[in-house]
Amino acid sequence: MSEPLFQRLTLIGIGLIGSSIARAVKARGLAGHVIIADQSEVSLRRAEDLGLGDRYCLDAGEAADGADLVILCTPVGASGAVAKWIAPSLKAGAILSDVGSTKAKVVKDVRPHVPANVHFIAGHPIAGTEQSGPDAGFATLFENRWCILTPDQAEQDAQAIERLSAFWRGMGSNVDVMDPDHHDRVLAIVSHLPHLIAYNIVGTADDLETVTKSEVIKYSASGFRDFTRLAASDPTMWRDVCLHNKDAILEMLGRFSEDLAALQRAVRWGDGDQLFELFTRTRGIRRSIIEAGQETDAPDFGRPHKKD
Amino acid sequence: MSEPLFQRLTLIGIGLIGSSIARAVKARGLAGHVIIADQSEVSLRRAEDLGLGDRYCLDAGEAADGADLVILCTPVGASGAVAKWIAPSLKAGAILSDVGSTKAKVVKDVRPHVPANVHFIAGHPIAGTEQSGPDAGFATLFENRWCILTPDQAEQDAQAIERLSAFWRGMGSNVDVMDPDHHDRVLAIVSHLPHLIAYNIVGTADDLETVTKSEVIKYSASGFRDFTRLAASDPTMWRDVCLHNKDAILEMLGRFSEDLAALQRAVRWGDGDQLFELFTRTRGIRRSIIEAGQETDAPDFGRPHKKD
Ligand SMILES: NC(=O)c1ccc[n+]([C@@H]2O[C@H](COP(=O)([O-])OP(=O)(O)OC[C@H]3O[C@@H](n4cnc5c(N)ncnc54)[C@H](OP(=O)(O)O)[C@@H]3O)[C@@H](O)[C@H]2O)c1
Ligand SMILES: NC(=O)c1ccc[n+]([C@@H]2O[C@H](COP(=O)([O-])OP(=O)(O)OC[C@H]3O[C@@H](n4cnc5c(N)ncnc54)[C@H](OP(=O)(O)O)[C@@H]3O)[C@@H](O)[C@H]2O)c1
Repeated sequence: MSEPLFQRLTLIGIGLIGSSIARAVKARGLAGHVIIADQSEVSLRRAEDLGLGDRYCLDAGEAADGADLVILCTPVGASGAVAKWIAPSLKAGAILSDVGSTKAKVVKDVRPHVPANVHFIAGHPIAGTEQSGPDAGFATLFENRWCILTPDQAEQDAQAIERLSAFWRGMGSNVDVMDPDHHDRVLAIVSHLPHLIAYNIVGTADDLETVTKSEVIKYSASGFRDFTRLAASDPTMWRDVCLHNKDAILEMLGRFSEDLAALQRAVRWGDGDQLFELFTRTRGIRRSIIEAGQETDAPDFGRPHKKD
Repeated sequence: MSEPLFQRLTLIGIGLIGSSIARAVKARGLAGHVIIADQSEVSLRRAEDLGLGDRYCLDAGEAADGADLVILCTPVGASGAVAKWIAPSLKAGAILSDVGSTKAKVVKDVRPHVPANVHFIAGHPIAGTEQSGPDAGFATLFENRWCILTPDQAEQDAQAIERLSAFWRGMGSNVDVMDPDHHDRVLAIVSHLPHLIAYNIVGTADDLETVTKSEVIKYSASGFRDFTRLAASDPTMWRDVCLHNKDAILEMLGRFSEDLAALQRAVRWGDGDQLFELFTRTRGIRRSIIEAGQETDAPDFGRPHKKD
């Protein structure tokens, strides 16, 4: 058997993403020894029952001690505090990374704590589901998905970046490198705005007086239910994302609202041509996403529905 | 074998919905003889190749002649013209219905053409996919979904409503009855607003200068791709829906925008508690939709993704 990429891997936070990494690492033999830390005793015990790692610690510092690769898999709001906690335990030459959905603020919060002899390279796998916790993860989550690394220093160690990239490729991902600010702008449109819009429309429906909740539920297959998946995502994670990526989110929200005002005007004035033009233009993007292997081409997302 | 519910069934428009009815009717023996009309010779020939009916006509009037049940399955904008066309052919005692996504305007457009001895009962099956045409349909589309009937006259024949209800139940649906205006308000929030929002956000992403189209596509699994399904729906159908249900759609758009402004404010001011409160409240609705059997509980809509 070939040598694993990293001798000692520490995962801090063993929820959906952390536990998916643990499973993928085990399935593909990417690390010699896996140490798991979490603030929640319940999650930690569950991880142990599931056999996700080799050692389990409530103390993140202890878990990070001597590791070759440490990945923070907590909500982004915790990154700074965890980095501060583990900094004294990090060994020389270790790689420190994370999986947080925002990058500029994580870099700002983490960087000051990173010892000079440790390689800090922030990252974000573009893969997930609406579920949370150690049971929600699965080994194939990252397959055929992208992972974005966002080194924040010009003189960052190319070899460390390459080792971390190989780790993500080992889990089946493609790797892109970009700067943290650009990451945050891209993710604001492809992820943060969609989640906010989904949360918002579900909230609007929840508040109506003239349409009952039971009607919304019964007839949801006509479109509404598609939004409820994103709107069922973890509240802590998404609160942190909104607080972290405020500027880019506000920019995208502004553009969205402007476009919506124009659409509203077209509806009000019965401008069928303008509506038809927009409704035609938007079809192509789905086709491209399917062709890029990022989406199924089965109708209705391939939801269970017998075909004849 | 028991008698079919209707001796002669005519379907006008053989796209996704018309062809799904044709398949379900055949699979469950709900009609003795099925006549199919469509304005498109290509669709009509395709329907014949697929063996969806017993007779195929370009002339809707000819198709409706002598039928016991006629269902309009064209985009709603065509309902009035088709009703006018077939009115002289409708036999006494026949039931005329439709499947259009809006109801008040369809009733307004169709009712004036309906002979006094014909039962007109508008309807709307709450089931569909983002695809179109005779190949897109399948026999199980209506199973475990709701069909809403919207009789528009107080003295409407109860027996005809019951026969039409039995027809939809025969295809596996549950049937609700409500007035057309209420239908339109309910559908504005559960279907029309979600589609408009989806079209809008995909349009916004398409227009960005700082984020490339290739980035939007590559990283779409982080949320954006969920919106592209609705935004790939038929442009003609959705233009017609917007033109037909303007008032209810504008009302729901107004509420949505108001709520979005409040959310935007919470992001701007970093009000984590308000964000957390909204993000928590919206989770319950998905749970209820899953419990009502209107959605899968598999993560990520059960999109193809190997679970370990
Ligand atoms: N979900 C997605 O689709 C997705 C996709 C890509 C990236 N991400 C990013 O991945 C990260 C983790 O998300 P997730 O979905 O895996 O969340 P999750 O399932 O909720 O797991 C997070 C885990 O971290 C623990 N935790 C929180 N604060 C901690 C701390 N200070 N020290 C140690 N453990 C702590 C949590 O414990 P408690 O339960 O006690 O809080 C929980 O067990 C987030 O930064 C998120 O932005 C998520
Ligand atoms: N799609 C959904 O999810 C869904 C769900 C519930 C209800 N509905 C309603 O169902 C109806 C049909 O939708 P669909 O999705 O089945 O659309 P579709 O797949 O596009 O099929 C519509 C068919 O009607 C034909 N047609 C158009 N105008 C006609 C006319 N004047 N005379 C005869 N045939 C005509 C079309 O031909 P051409 O191709 O030549 O135009 C096409 O073959 C619409 O009213 C829609 O609101 C749709």
